[in-house]
Amino acid sequence: MDHTRSLKFRVAKILDLAEPDDTLGKFLDLFILGLIFLNTIAVALETVKPLFEAYFLEFRRFEQFTVFVFSIEYVLRLWSCTVIPKYRHPLFGRLKFIFTPLAIIDLFAILPFFLSLYIPLFSPQFRIGRTVRLIRFFRVLKLHRYTDSLSILVRVYRLKKEELFLTFFVLTVLLFISSTLIYFAEHSAQPEAFSSIPAAIWWGTITLTTVGYGDVYPVTLLGRILGGSLAVLGIGLFALPAGILASGFSEELAARKAQKRGTDVIICPHCGEDINSPPHYAETESEGLKED
Amino acid sequence: MDHTRSLKFRVAKILDLAEPDDTLGKFLDLFILGLIFLNTIAVALETVKPLFEAYFLEFRRFEQFTVFVFSIEYVLRLWSCTVIPKYRHPLFGRLKFIFTPLAIIDLFAILPFFLSLYIPLFSPQFRIGRTVRLIRFFRVLKLHRYTDSLSILVRVYRLKKEELFLTFFVLTVLLFISSTLIYFAEHSAQPEAFSSIPAAIWWGTITLTTVGYGDVYPVTLLGRILGGSLAVLGIGLFALPAGILASGFSEELAARKAQKRGTDVIICPHCGEDINSPPHYAETESEGLKED
Amino acid sequence: MDHTRSLKFRVAKILDLAEPDDTLGKFLDLFILGLIFLNTIAVALETVKPLFEAYFLEFRRFEQFTVFVFSIEYVLRLWSCTVIPKYRHPLFGRLKFIFTPLAIIDLFAILPFFLSLYIPLFSPQFRIGRTVRLIRFFRVLKLHRYTDSLSILVRVYRLKKEELFLTFFVLTVLLFISSTLIYFAEHSAQPEAFSSIPAAIWWGTITLTTVGYGDVYPVTLLGRILGGSLAVLGIGLFALPAGILASGFSEELAARKAQKRGTDVIICPHCGEDINSPPHYAETESEGLKED
Amino acid sequence: MDHTRSLKFRVAKILDLAEPDDTLGKFLDLFILGLIFLNTIAVALETVKPLFEAYFLEFRRFEQFTVFVFSIEYVLRLWSCTVIPKYRHPLFGRLKFIFTPLAIIDLFAILPFFLSLYIPLFSPQFRIGRTVRLIRFFRVLKLHRYTDSLSILVRVYRLKKEELFLTFFVLTVLLFISSTLIYFAEHSAQPEAFSSIPAAIWWGTITLTTVGYGDVYPVTLLGRILGGSLAVLGIGLFALPAGILASGFSEELAARKAQKRGTDVIICPHCGEDINSPPHYAETESEGLKED
Repeated sequence: MDHTRSLKFRVAKILDLAEPDDTLGKFLDLFILGLIFLNTIAVALETVKPLFEAYFLEFRRFEQFTVFVFSIEYVLRLWSCTVIPKYRHPLFGRLKFIFTPLAIIDLFAILPFFLSLYIPLFSPQFRIGRTVRLIRFFRVLKLHRYTDSLSILVRVYRLKKEELFLTFFVLTVLLFISSTLIYFAEHSAQPEAFSSIPAAIWWGTITLTTVGYGDVYPVTLLGRILGGSLAVLGIGLFALPAGILASGFSEELAARKAQKRGTDVIICPHCGEDINSPPHYAETESEGLKED
Repeated sequence: MDHTRSLKFRVAKILDLAEPDDTLGKFLDLFILGLIFLNTIAVALETVKPLFEAYFLEFRRFEQFTVFVFSIEYVLRLWSCTVIPKYRHPLFGRLKFIFTPLAIIDLFAILPFFLSLYIPLFSPQFRIGRTVRLIRFFRVLKLHRYTDSLSILVRVYRLKKEELFLTFFVLTVLLFISSTLIYFAEHSAQPEAFSSIPAAIWWGTITLTTVGYGDVYPVTLLGRILGGSLAVLGIGLFALPAGILASGFSEELAARKAQKRGTDVIICPHCGEDINSPPHYAETESEGLKED
Repeated sequence: MDHTRSLKFRVAKILDLAEPDDTLGKFLDLFILGLIFLNTIAVALETVKPLFEAYFLEFRRFEQFTVFVFSIEYVLRLWSCTVIPKYRHPLFGRLKFIFTPLAIIDLFAILPFFLSLYIPLFSPQFRIGRTVRLIRFFRVLKLHRYTDSLSILVRVYRLKKEELFLTFFVLTVLLFISSTLIYFAEHSAQPEAFSSIPAAIWWGTITLTTVGYGDVYPVTLLGRILGGSLAVLGIGLFALPAGILASGFSEELAARKAQKRGTDVIICPHCGEDINSPPHYAETESEGLKED
Repeated sequence: MDHTRSLKFRVAKILDLAEPDDTLGKFLDLFILGLIFLNTIAVALETVKPLFEAYFLEFRRFEQFTVFVFSIEYVLRLWSCTVIPKYRHPLFGRLKFIFTPLAIIDLFAILPFFLSLYIPLFSPQFRIGRTVRLIRFFRVLKLHRYTDSLSILVRVYRLKKEELFLTFFVLTVLLFISSTLIYFAEHSAQPEAFSSIPAAIWWGTITLTTVGYGDVYPVTLLGRILGGSLAVLGIGLFALPAGILASGFSEELAARKAQKRGTDVIICPHCGEDINSPPHYAETESEGLKED
């Protein structure tokens, strides 16, 4: 039993991220990630008609092999998930596990293949599921060398999420109002391009983000004034988050430095000591004062 | 009388923003905000022809219900506004209140409905008034959890408004000059696209903000050199405000930290003095002087 | 003589920027700036055909009035410039003054009008000279309330001009190389759009600055890979200057604070004093030490 | 022998970058850089058909002259490279040198000319090699006045390369996933524009970088929601690197200041000690311990 359990642990560990000293585990990790990567390429190339027609068989075989490996992986995940406290129960724990977002994505990567075997009219478009597994690549972020950088990015985001949300919120409200206004300015001049307010919101998004495809653009004077203003507002959409994030990174950096030394460095103007330096200095100091 | 007055107070408070412990008030607040939000969606969807034709009756009923609620809200605002010192006078205070921007927007959201009942040719476009009420959503910014972030954004803007204005001013002057120059460079080659200087200013705005719809673009050598330069200047339009705001956020942060130290009593563990007590040098100096 | 001289001084001062307490001078300043602004508008609106045809006479009269005022201003500048040490000489000083860039712009704003009176085929396009006088608007920057902000912008630019130049230089070289490469990738597929390397450079500039008009874009696989890479490089063109300028503003700010307090604040780790605090503290301190 | 060797040294030095006091060397440097620059212009202008037809002979002569100079330069580089320890061996060292990237570029700039003399069907497109030599311009970066700025840029990049890589990585994965999704959303509506997933990736890159040519854009509701989201994500692609780099520049600056204090001897005027002498706390502590 204990033997099975320790095997389960190792399988769960490898499927999450192998320990640095587990050579076989690291190899299996790389194999799965490599297969996900190659699938993304294969799914992309399959949609190029001449390639698909020339290499039809190779694409099918690669899909079969992939689904075979992914299925084994899925079963192993399901088997070993019980070592995680949350999914401890052999039945309900596993059911809970099946409905986690990542497990659903994993299932979605293999299910279309099996369904298409038995349901003749099954849409081949669901093969896309194999691409969505790319999300598993974020596992790379767990690699030791990136944890530090990632935790900085996450903390900066947390530190500044309210400012970022406010910027986003204000710009969204302005986007809706100006899209509604431009609809009334442009609708009669361009009934096709600005056919409805949702169409105007599409134009507004593409203008505010400065993408500017050029499929829709204002032609009336009022519409151009509104459009120009929205484009200028778009600068705020770039400059504000950039400024917010820049100060977030500085704050995070200062916090890290301070943490290394204790906490925030505050120099007492009376004695010149860092008020957060370890307590024994304080003792030394007070003793020193007594001695005077 | 006192009873009416306290009711008025509560109504005014709810219509502005309910107290955190006022359950009914918070519910009414959410109800109004929700109705504004749904109206924005409804006004937008009404402009999609197939939807409007299919759900004509539902859209009308929702509009009637909305205008009914908004009218009650407007009347209540008008009734309770006298508790605000500025609008204290029962008649002139209320008149003053009617002409505040927000009250005008509120009126504009309901008036078109009533006017369209009696004026047969009244343009239905004024129903847009219901969307402009989205501005009321900025009330969300008054919610406690965002006040801090909002005040930072406002203070950074105030701190840096001169630098931002200068950047904007210099770029506007350059925009006008280059638009005039490109008009003379492109007009003979593209009499349609660069028909006049105002048309060239439209092109200039869309280029400087890097939106680039592609409805107007230079084709002559001189025009392309001018256009390329304006596009490169556009980088300054993003990089300068981003840099200015980043330093603004840092400044604001430093000011906050300093202020915190100014209000919190922090006792130096080394010498037992409040680090914010009168300046150390001065004391030392005066003591030194006495000792002389 | 002294009387004339003091008048000359005042005229020179007003034409540059009136003193805050000189009411007449400030009025004249505003009048000239207002006239320049209205001329920009007039020059722009004149190019809109229907407007020009409807208000032909008004446009001509306004031009005549403008040229009359600008001519008087120009003559006054020329007369009073001798009070400036550089242009002290009555003849050579004035000649030197005439060939300063700003004086040339001023002349260019009035000369076309006089020339068109005597030369029948004189191109009316030179009326644009009145717009270029917009540069005089930068005089606004001399206003007291903006001098501080302006000097910050100028100092940050000077502080960081080498980093900015390097970024610009590296990106220019990359722009040239990728434009040459894309010409060979796209020329055979799109002989019209990518007709020559200079045309490819136009495409490159519009892509690197993320304007993206859509008049030229790659269609081959190799061209798209090059184009995508250039677009991604374009991010560096925004992010690098933004980062450089942000740190420039911080540096400038720190320098200002330090200047206020003396110089850079360096706290001595041995005695906790600011090593730049006035010397008498040091005396006090050493005396204090002697007393121990 | 020693004479040859010292000549070799000088040649190698000049071909790399002449010493500031070597007038002839600096002249030769400028001559080569000028010739590279003029070649870039010539290669670009040659592709403009009317210019090429009008100045065919001049272009050929300039190419012959260039190849002559570049060949001498190449031979001199090959001859003198043995003074560099890495390429010391007369034969193998030189072979190693030939296969360095810069030497390959140099060869590629002259080889096409010689090949075209003997191979009649040799593609003239390889003349582009002369443009790629522009990379030699980065030698300018070695000039003394830019070394400081360059080393800052390089160090900031190194300091922040993990955060930048993470940003890039996350956005690339999101780009692939959203390109796959949009392919399935748009393929049936626009079988031409979104013909395959690689085509959708091209659209995604151009949208995420906010270039937005407008050659491909979504038209379905789902496609527009995906496209709008990707455009908004694109803001992160600008704001995050800008913020990361801004904090990187601040860090680098702080590190420089600290280093300066570490090398300069700054005597505290209050206590007469070098502020960089061994840590104060440690001393205080040990003294305190002795006193116990």
